[in-house]
Amino acid sequence: MVYNAKMFAVRRTYWLGNDMTLVVGQLHQIGVIHSPYKEQKEAPFQGRYARDESTLEVFEEYDPALLHIEQCSHIIVLYLQDRADREVLQTRTPWGPEIHGVFATRSPNRPNPIGFCVVELLKRDGRFLRVRGLDALEGSPLIDMKPYSSEVDSVQDAVIGWHKRRDLKPRK
Amino acid sequence: MVYNAKMFAVRRTYWLGNDMTLVVGQLHQIGVIHSPYKEQKEAPFQGRYARDESTLEVFEEYDPALLHIEQCSHIIVLYLQDRADREVLQTRTPWGPEIHGVFATRSPNRPNPIGFCVVELLKRDGRFLRVRGLDALEGSPLIDMKPYSSEVDSVQDAVIGWHKRRDLKPRK
Repeated sequence: MVYNAKMFAVRRTYWLGNDMTLVVGQLHQIGVIHSPYKEQKEAPFQGRYARDESTLEVFEEYDPALLHIEQCSHIIVLYLQDRADREVLQTRTPWGPEIHGVFATRSPNRPNPIGFCVVELLKRDGRFLRVRGLDALEGSPLIDMKPYSSEVDSVQDAVIGWHKRRDLKPRK
Repeated sequence: MVYNAKMFAVRRTYWLGNDMTLVVGQLHQIGVIHSPYKEQKEAPFQGRYARDESTLEVFEEYDPALLHIEQCSHIIVLYLQDRADREVLQTRTPWGPEIHGVFATRSPNRPNPIGFCVVELLKRDGRFLRVRGLDALEGSPLIDMKPYSSEVDSVQDAVIGWHKRRDLKPRK
């Protein structure tokens, strides 16, 4: 059985919003992603090893926030996966037939579909950033960027138990 | 001069929301963070090397989304930095006197104050996850969790130019 949020009839009284979930903040679009991937089926399962390049266009209003970003070799990109399904709580993955909770997967379908990618910054041209390794679809709203630090953000020996038991070939 | 978003009088006509920014989505709170850090000044600059432990409490409604998360040794935590200032576009850091755009820093003050941390998952007890290495303040709304993959998320040789020119001691 695959659960989704709609099944839960009894909710806390302070749940708000049209879809009866607790809204704690709004996402402001800071720019837009120009990507070679027009549809979900074209996008790689993970951007990291894709050699394709994308462009992050930051809106004029946020230009001052880019000061010195060209000094970062790699950046963390947060973007809105605006074609994802926010109601899904459990899912299958391309790696096998088992069902997992979405928080144990990298599926875009999740309560807050915020995509996370570490990308290589190839070139800054004003408020346009050319990057490599992003799995976002064309037109995805850009939410945040942060400098990636090998010291702070890199973990060498992480294990995802359910994933290690499979070979790395996604099922067709 | 430190820019902030309020200075920009001319805006696109499609900017929406009370504060005149383009709202593209809502953040749904999926849980709450119980942390030893009650105030900003108690929190480490980066959680990674803090040995302190925190607890992620996931709301009951999202419990099914945790299936198999205990198999992940490290998880990516996204949370709302609800005490941050969303108007700040440029800032100083603890590492020196220069001004940087917020997208070139890890400051919590930024247009979408979504905190990002890679934490070690120590123990799952139902919908309570004991973790190490989180810099979030007590009571921060939990937004998302994803399994961390060394293969996909770890970069060894990332450079942050402005940071490398400093020693690693934050200024007092």
